[in-house]
Amino acid sequence: MLRLFPPPGGTLPVADTYADPGWPAPGPERPYVALNMVSTVDGKVAVGGGAAGIGSQADHALMRQLRARADAVMTGAGTLRAEDYSSKVPERYVPERLARGQSAQPLAVIVSGSGQLPADRPLFWGAGFARALVTGQRGAVAVDPAQAKHLQLVVAGEETVDLAVGLRLLRAEHGVRWLLGEGGPHLNHSLLAAGLVDELFLTFAPKLVGSAGPTIVEGPPFQLAGAIPLTLLAAYADGSELFFRYRVHHLL
Amino acid sequence: MLRLFPPPGGTLPVADTYADPGWPAPGPERPYVALNMVSTVDGKVAVGGGAAGIGSQADHALMRQLRARADAVMTGAGTLRAEDYSSKVPERYVPERLARGQSAQPLAVIVSGSGQLPADRPLFWGAGFARALVTGQRGAVAVDPAQAKHLQLVVAGEETVDLAVGLRLLRAEHGVRWLLGEGGPHLNHSLLAAGLVDELFLTFAPKLVGSAGPTIVEGPPFQLAGAIPLTLLAAYADGSELFFRYRVHHLL
Repeated sequence: MLRLFPPPGGTLPVADTYADPGWPAPGPERPYVALNMVSTVDGKVAVGGGAAGIGSQADHALMRQLRARADAVMTGAGTLRAEDYSSKVPERYVPERLARGQSAQPLAVIVSGSGQLPADRPLFWGAGFARALVTGQRGAVAVDPAQAKHLQLVVAGEETVDLAVGLRLLRAEHGVRWLLGEGGPHLNHSLLAAGLVDELFLTFAPKLVGSAGPTIVEGPPFQLAGAIPLTLLAAYADGSELFFRYRVHHLL
Repeated sequence: MLRLFPPPGGTLPVADTYADPGWPAPGPERPYVALNMVSTVDGKVAVGGGAAGIGSQADHALMRQLRARADAVMTGAGTLRAEDYSSKVPERYVPERLARGQSAQPLAVIVSGSGQLPADRPLFWGAGFARALVTGQRGAVAVDPAQAKHLQLVVAGEETVDLAVGLRLLRAEHGVRWLLGEGGPHLNHSLLAAGLVDELFLTFAPKLVGSAGPTIVEGPPFQLAGAIPLTLLAAYADGSELFFRYRVHHLL
């Protein structure tokens, strides 16, 4: 892996790139939140219906490093519906997690307004890690009882999900200090619009797909004549694939 | 400006970054074609209806450098409709253009299927540069006669525009060796799908807009399960703004 930014550049093993992202200790109100996404150079997050085909082995290795540092990995239920998704980290990361006082596996947090999760996702329903469902009161009463016994229920909001409340509960009642958000684009939008995101990790895959999917953030414009500013914290290259780390500033 | 890639990194004045992009001499069949676009980190090319608000002063400086090296600057008629657009380069570039045997200003090439161009665009209809309209036979008969006398007509295709033919005519009959494409997204898609693009310059503006516009390439997927591969040629940073140069490979 080439380090491009900040200078001076240099080379480092992929395994060291995000081995310690240096995330700060969060305050009591919510976890420290980083998003991790992969897009093509023309901004698309999906090829043929899923993100799995976009990134390289290096991308997957960095994703696992970030997950290994997180207390929880959050995704929207749409991601779970789109692919057989798991946020489990390889066994080799478990000793260092335990040594840091973390659970063996990050808490798998699913956000769903409806409370209805697909049952045919073995990787998500598999053994060895805890799961939480963040949903509103409407969704909470709709959860399949057979699924509910495998889920920690985080009720935040009424008709819709109040993500600020959900993150506060994850911090206060589930001990989540560092939360990695893995999309999809609409969940990213909701988190960003509510000022709940601290960092963005983005893999920039060296390809153009035309239009085969949404972008990393989908929803209404954040401001009529503005945008959420980012500060570049780091940039790496593996061949022609680029890896960015940005600080996300808050409009609020 | 920081040079990030290829290594070793270093600093250089903005004015030197693309002062000589080293574009090769093209063959007889078409010009050497580079696209130049700006997008936000969430892949959007427009904020509030135009791209003008996305890039910084450094972005604009690099755009002028690339235009100053090009024999022609091509845009879709939609860009002309969306903003008061001009591809003229500042006077200070004129002596070096003349010394290289180029016209004082790049040929302004507009692509339009309908042949109908807005009249209320003073920057485009202004003095001091030549204009060409690439259109099909259907569009050619619809051109406003008052506008036609200010345009070199390049008739390529019948009902629709055949860009391969258009580029061949620009090369053979108008002497265009290096053509800079400035979008929009649908024209980019057509050029890429036809295998007519050699390079992509992309400014990556450090902001997230949610969804306020299309991406740099808009149209159907290039392939059901594939994409056009890119090779990273160079990367620069000005603060948190990034500038990429990619080689575009051909699927054909």
